[in-house]
Amino acid sequence: ISDEAAPGQKQGPTFKDGRRRVDYVLTYHIQKPQSVRRNTSRFSGSRVLRSLRQTLSLSKSPAMPPPKIDPEIAAQEHRLDYHEDDKRFRQNEFEDNLREMGLELEKDEGNKIPGIGFVKIHAPWNVLCREAEFMKLKMPTRKVYEVKQGSNLVEKINLFIHKVTEPLHPKVESNKPQNVKPLSYPFSREKQHLLLGNGVYTAAYPLHDIAWEGFDNISLLSPQLLYEEWASYSVFYKYQPIGLIRKYFGDKIGLYFAWLGIYTQMLIPAAIVGVIVFLYGCATVDDNIPSMEICDPRNNITMCPMCDRACSYWKLREACGTARASHLFDNPATVFFSIFMALWAAMFMEHWKRRQMRLNYIWDLTGFEEEEDHRRAEYELRVMKKTLKKQHKSTQVCLSLPLITSWWSHHCCLKIVTFAIVFGVILYRISIRAALHMSSNPSNIRATVKGTAAVINLIVIIIMDEVYGALARWLTLLEIPKTDKSFEERLIFKTFVLKFVNAFTPIVYLAFFRGRLDLFYFPDDLFTTKRDTCAHAGCLMELCIQLCITMLGKQLIQNNLFEIIIPKIKKLIRRRKSDMDSQQQEDYNLTLQRYEKDHFLGPFEGLSPEYMEMIIQFGMVTLFVASFPLAPLFALLNNIIEIRLDAKKFVTELRRPIAARAKDIGIWYNLLRGLSKVAVIVNAFVISFTSDFIPRLVYQYMYSSDGSMHGFVNHTLSYFNVTEFQPGTAPLQPLHLGYEVELCRYKDYREPPWSNTPYDLSKEFWAILACRLAFVIVFQNVVMLMSDFVDWLIPDIPKDISMQIHKEKILMVELFMKEEKGKKRLRENHSNQSPVQPRCRPSSQETSNC
Amino acid sequence: ISDEAAPGQKQGPTFKDGRRRVDYVLTYHIQKPQSVRRNTSRFSGSRVLRSLRQTLSLSKSPAMPPPKIDPEIAAQEHRLDYHEDDKRFRQNEFEDNLREMGLELEKDEGNKIPGIGFVKIHAPWNVLCREAEFMKLKMPTRKVYEVKQGSNLVEKINLFIHKVTEPLHPKVESNKPQNVKPLSYPFSREKQHLLLGNGVYTAAYPLHDIAWEGFDNISLLSPQLLYEEWASYSVFYKYQPIGLIRKYFGDKIGLYFAWLGIYTQMLIPAAIVGVIVFLYGCATVDDNIPSMEICDPRNNITMCPMCDRACSYWKLREACGTARASHLFDNPATVFFSIFMALWAAMFMEHWKRRQMRLNYIWDLTGFEEEEDHRRAEYELRVMKKTLKKQHKSTQVCLSLPLITSWWSHHCCLKIVTFAIVFGVILYRISIRAALHMSSNPSNIRATVKGTAAVINLIVIIIMDEVYGALARWLTLLEIPKTDKSFEERLIFKTFVLKFVNAFTPIVYLAFFRGRLDLFYFPDDLFTTKRDTCAHAGCLMELCIQLCITMLGKQLIQNNLFEIIIPKIKKLIRRRKSDMDSQQQEDYNLTLQRYEKDHFLGPFEGLSPEYMEMIIQFGMVTLFVASFPLAPLFALLNNIIEIRLDAKKFVTELRRPIAARAKDIGIWYNLLRGLSKVAVIVNAFVISFTSDFIPRLVYQYMYSSDGSMHGFVNHTLSYFNVTEFQPGTAPLQPLHLGYEVELCRYKDYREPPWSNTPYDLSKEFWAILACRLAFVIVFQNVVMLMSDFVDWLIPDIPKDISMQIHKEKILMVELFMKEEKGKKRLRENHSNQSPVQPRCRPSSQETSNC
Repeated sequence: ISDEAAPGQKQGPTFKDGRRRVDYVLTYHIQKPQSVRRNTSRFSGSRVLRSLRQTLSLSKSPAMPPPKIDPEIAAQEHRLDYHEDDKRFRQNEFEDNLREMGLELEKDEGNKIPGIGFVKIHAPWNVLCREAEFMKLKMPTRKVYEVKQGSNLVEKINLFIHKVTEPLHPKVESNKPQNVKPLSYPFSREKQHLLLGNGVYTAAYPLHDIAWEGFDNISLLSPQLLYEEWASYSVFYKYQPIGLIRKYFGDKIGLYFAWLGIYTQMLIPAAIVGVIVFLYGCATVDDNIPSMEICDPRNNITMCPMCDRACSYWKLREACGTARASHLFDNPATVFFSIFMALWAAMFMEHWKRRQMRLNYIWDLTGFEEEEDHRRAEYELRVMKKTLKKQHKSTQVCLSLPLITSWWSHHCCLKIVTFAIVFGVILYRISIRAALHMSSNPSNIRATVKGTAAVINLIVIIIMDEVYGALARWLTLLEIPKTDKSFEERLIFKTFVLKFVNAFTPIVYLAFFRGRLDLFYFPDDLFTTKRDTCAHAGCLMELCIQLCITMLGKQLIQNNLFEIIIPKIKKLIRRRKSDMDSQQQEDYNLTLQRYEKDHFLGPFEGLSPEYMEMIIQFGMVTLFVASFPLAPLFALLNNIIEIRLDAKKFVTELRRPIAARAKDIGIWYNLLRGLSKVAVIVNAFVISFTSDFIPRLVYQYMYSSDGSMHGFVNHTLSYFNVTEFQPGTAPLQPLHLGYEVELCRYKDYREPPWSNTPYDLSKEFWAILACRLAFVIVFQNVVMLMSDFVDWLIPDIPKDISMQIHKEKILMVELFMKEEKGKKRLRENHSNQSPVQPRCRPSSQETSNC
Repeated sequence: ISDEAAPGQKQGPTFKDGRRRVDYVLTYHIQKPQSVRRNTSRFSGSRVLRSLRQTLSLSKSPAMPPPKIDPEIAAQEHRLDYHEDDKRFRQNEFEDNLREMGLELEKDEGNKIPGIGFVKIHAPWNVLCREAEFMKLKMPTRKVYEVKQGSNLVEKINLFIHKVTEPLHPKVESNKPQNVKPLSYPFSREKQHLLLGNGVYTAAYPLHDIAWEGFDNISLLSPQLLYEEWASYSVFYKYQPIGLIRKYFGDKIGLYFAWLGIYTQMLIPAAIVGVIVFLYGCATVDDNIPSMEICDPRNNITMCPMCDRACSYWKLREACGTARASHLFDNPATVFFSIFMALWAAMFMEHWKRRQMRLNYIWDLTGFEEEEDHRRAEYELRVMKKTLKKQHKSTQVCLSLPLITSWWSHHCCLKIVTFAIVFGVILYRISIRAALHMSSNPSNIRATVKGTAAVINLIVIIIMDEVYGALARWLTLLEIPKTDKSFEERLIFKTFVLKFVNAFTPIVYLAFFRGRLDLFYFPDDLFTTKRDTCAHAGCLMELCIQLCITMLGKQLIQNNLFEIIIPKIKKLIRRRKSDMDSQQQEDYNLTLQRYEKDHFLGPFEGLSPEYMEMIIQFGMVTLFVASFPLAPLFALLNNIIEIRLDAKKFVTELRRPIAARAKDIGIWYNLLRGLSKVAVIVNAFVISFTSDFIPRLVYQYMYSSDGSMHGFVNHTLSYFNVTEFQPGTAPLQPLHLGYEVELCRYKDYREPPWSNTPYDLSKEFWAILACRLAFVIVFQNVVMLMSDFVDWLIPDIPKDISMQIHKEKILMVELFMKEEKGKKRLRENHSNQSPVQPRCRPSSQETSNC
């Protein structure tokens, strides 16, 4: 964190001696815990401490007490109460351990916030060095080399591009194209997780840099610069100062914003093509023969009633508006756009991989191996309990269920529960959906009704989202994963599945199941089951309305409500708790130390919610792109705001997060990859089953007499003999249209009443079905092949980076060889004997420390 | 290579001083090059030298001459002739460079092989150390820790399994379960590629170990042990001594044999299930209603003639034998087996990944980063030429085409050529195929004819394989890839595509296109186009014959002819060249030094042919498994022989290959992965289109009156009115069956002559087609999902290995911390001041060498 701070340099809050800098702060309550505990987020504190604890357990001596339960698990296990004495004892022990590790501590109990004590921690230079070595951190060596970018032409083009995009770059020094780069070599000492806690501390955080306040010391890590060049809406059109973000917040958060930036950037072409596709739909709406035929006043087709008894016959002309609107989203350009978006997704993944590789190189992470195994305290507790149980051979029934059952059956059981819950969610959502539709009247103002339904659906989604988040957390806790990483991954995966199912079930139902569940029903209940059908021109338009409202609504509500208003309210409440009015508050604020101020900021709760939101959005953009070409545009607009919103939050609203090292975005990449694979299949089905694309093609090439679309509408309608209505289902007002109806038409491919097998599915139905399925197979495999091809075509490591890595290796070898030669000559001058004698032993490596 | 040899220990051939061991040998010809050059393989020598050269180019000084062309590229470029003087000069310069690198050389021109000079190279301990450090080789430290395998129960089970499989393990010490493992830490010095050559040397190889001859020194690296416990047919049932193989031949070859072992091992369950499926087919052949109906003597169906004029009507009963035989391969168990094999492939990939991880851990390769960039000399030459051209701005036309065209267009052009060739191969094979079929008489002895065709096809495949190998090589050379690695990968990929297409085109044609090309033809040429159709019971049986012959034949011929006989002949020819009879030869042999003997062995030509053979076999096993459930059995039998055959070759027939480091099997893994993905799709199509599985299901559930298969045969046959034969196509002998035929039947789903649209595709056709396509979609996606699930379920790193890695990390940190503390205390005792003073600087790392 403070690796760049030269030793002794005064920069920010210090210990009382005015020399040692405060790197990290722990808070605890001096008086009764109940009253103060609410002040700080239990969750974040415990999380940080837990992670600290596991690292330290690496070097714990056998004499140390077994790890204690942290608050979350404690809630499950009868809520053990620590006595004040016990707590004090544990705290002392913990702080002794910290000192043992070489850290320096200073306590501050008489500060301006009553009831809260601070432990300020300073990590001396040698401790930092030691940790850096363990982490194999790469450090720049004295050697500097010139970076040459390919040939002259390439260099010129790059320079030109850079000049053109000059105004888009943030005004941060590090952003200029670097022609000189220091050689880096693994060295490494940095402390990521520091120490061991026992649930006696209420919060743990590093400090925001002081330059934020003083302005006297404009360091590279100035949050002021970050605020001006990053966290402001006025710079929305600029690139983000990723290097600076990473320096201030660490790799993990830097990677998140880099990813978000790339995603937003990639959305620009997608949004442009989407708008073009939509405009194409608008432009061709008047040339569309099927909707022209429907709207033609000469067309005199009598349609069968849409519901039993209450509805009557109607004229196909009435569906004119819907048919024209449908064309906007259901035209050949949509097919092109789906393929485009599938390739776009592949390109995006590739682009990100390259960007990540480049960042890894620039940030000197290339050699860094992920630290994986921080055992979770809960897991160790469980293992310990089991061992104890075994040793005592006691037959007493354990209180918590998971401890009794064997690991495997426990695991299986949980998997099944998760699956059942997901399945339940799907069923529940579909039934809600069906109920909503059942009660709606089939009429011409369908769109309005559907709109309302979509809004209700949206509200349900948002509420259930929170519920499912808690559910996923609970399920993951039950599983007791072994390590922190696996805990996080399992939690993310579960949350993702639940939230994803929650958001997409109604859309999937609308796209694929609506009005199709009667496929193999017998003809006699033809009309009773067909009530929940789409308007004449396919379900695509309804799907579009649903998607549009879900996307816009979700983004608006989540952005505004959850990300702006709620944190504000939370902050207010935190302040209110300390019982002061605003004027008093401000005066008071000015007198506070940096570490006291940071205490009032919100805790950092991890990047998962941010990623999750973006991934669900990515799903919306790719999964149903065939039905809603404007989705990328909406996503783009949202993200431009989102970046600056998140930036503001990180710089001003939250305590500074612990800088965590990361090489990649972890499980999120896999989720994205999975989504883009599913998207191909979903789009194939949307095009072939939800849109009228295939029936139109089949009509044109197999049935049309003159190769045009004329007669297509007639072709899609089957005949029904009105004398064959089931008893009680015939319309009450059969003369509604002013004439008696003998044959009415309905949208399906079935045999006419006068065939040998009336109302059976016709040959056309099977032919079209075969074509639809063939299209799915072809589309899926061709697009998957193309994606793989894109994947294979674009190298994962950018050419210039691989060239530089190669060059660095050569230089490093050269440097070492030169040194070696110099030494050899020196040695030869001294003594000219025993050339075979081993000069190097493995053990010498061990003793050479920095 | 000789890293394990303690300095000064006498072991194997040495320099004349009897102390320094010969690690590597270069050969050159002393007299006229033309006469001797044929003695040694130009290819292998140049390849090794090239690789040596590039490594050394890492540290080349600016004064060095530009890299010279190696023989292969030289052939393209006017075959530059070196004068003898020039050669001698270059050789001296090269040897000076070697000495500069710290190696020790000894020349031996007066040996027993006339005309050939040897340069013996010894790498002293300090050079090995330096290289080991560059390669970050992990070395065991003094610290040793105990490996504990999970709980008591797991340990007991492992012990039990080990006891049971005791006889299966080779009698090699390292094979016992190790409870103690030394901690390893990156240290590393080993020379993989040694030096720089200019085409003046004819061969370069390390030596086989001496223990092979003397028996007096049974070292761990004894080839004698390898020969007894590995390269012998009598130990075919045992595991391979992988550790020993790796120690003697290096990581790359060790990984190949480990992979081959895993593959063979995994084939055992596949073979067993395959045999069960086949036996199930045999057992149920008498209960199969469709074939019973065909064979029923009461059945009196008259079939239409199979060809124009010459053929006449025939009775369906005649197809009885074929129908029964088809059932063996075309029954519901086949579908199960396809799914099983798709999952098997996924399991195999996972299993291998885990095994690879385990080997990486055991061989201490976990931290090792692949050395990627050895620029190829050809590429550097090309770049140099280009630069020269630019500098001189000369307008002279360059002789070689690739140098004129720009890189990109050149690249594109080559891609197109490759594609065109692949396409040409496909077309050519299909047309050959069609020609063969056209001339064959449709009769009852179909199987025999098909068998002959398959044999001819096999011979064509084997001959073309060699041609395509050369073609791929030529194409890759044209591309001038940048690095050795990319050269190898491109060559492998091209060879793979060509050989794969070559091997599988006829099978694909047979499976999917035979008799289907007339799908949308008009009914009037129904019978002229349907001549190349399969026997009544589907094409599956013919496919099976083809596969069976291709697999068995290819394996037999490749194993026996190419791998046993041809190397023997080559060796004989090499010996014959030196003009001695056999007795003289043997006496002479005994007097030869080890390095002279090795000179007579065949050069090692890389692992590509071995891998390629196995991958094509893997394709046979997975791609068409639905049509030939015995494929895994054949593959298993072949591989058991193959392992020992390869082992023999490596131990006794070839010069010892240069030990190359490798973490994985590289591009082969990707090819395997690609194949197992393609296999899912191919199997889906084979089941739904080649077999009668779907039509049977559809008949049973949609058309059958009683839900049984009775009447299925009748359902699949359409009617033809014999009065509607095209002029000149009616049979010459219409009364062949003894009665006049009015309506004959043929196998297709078409409307009868008396319908409104006679001979049009019927509704049943479309319904079955839809079901077939639906099955493909469901099968493909379900199996892919299941494969991904298997992939996700099985962790890539085995649990015990990840636990050990975790433990090692903790121990390493503990060790270092302890040392640190000791030092700190020491320091504190000495001086108690300035704790902030930096004790460690990045630059200190540079100067600390081993």
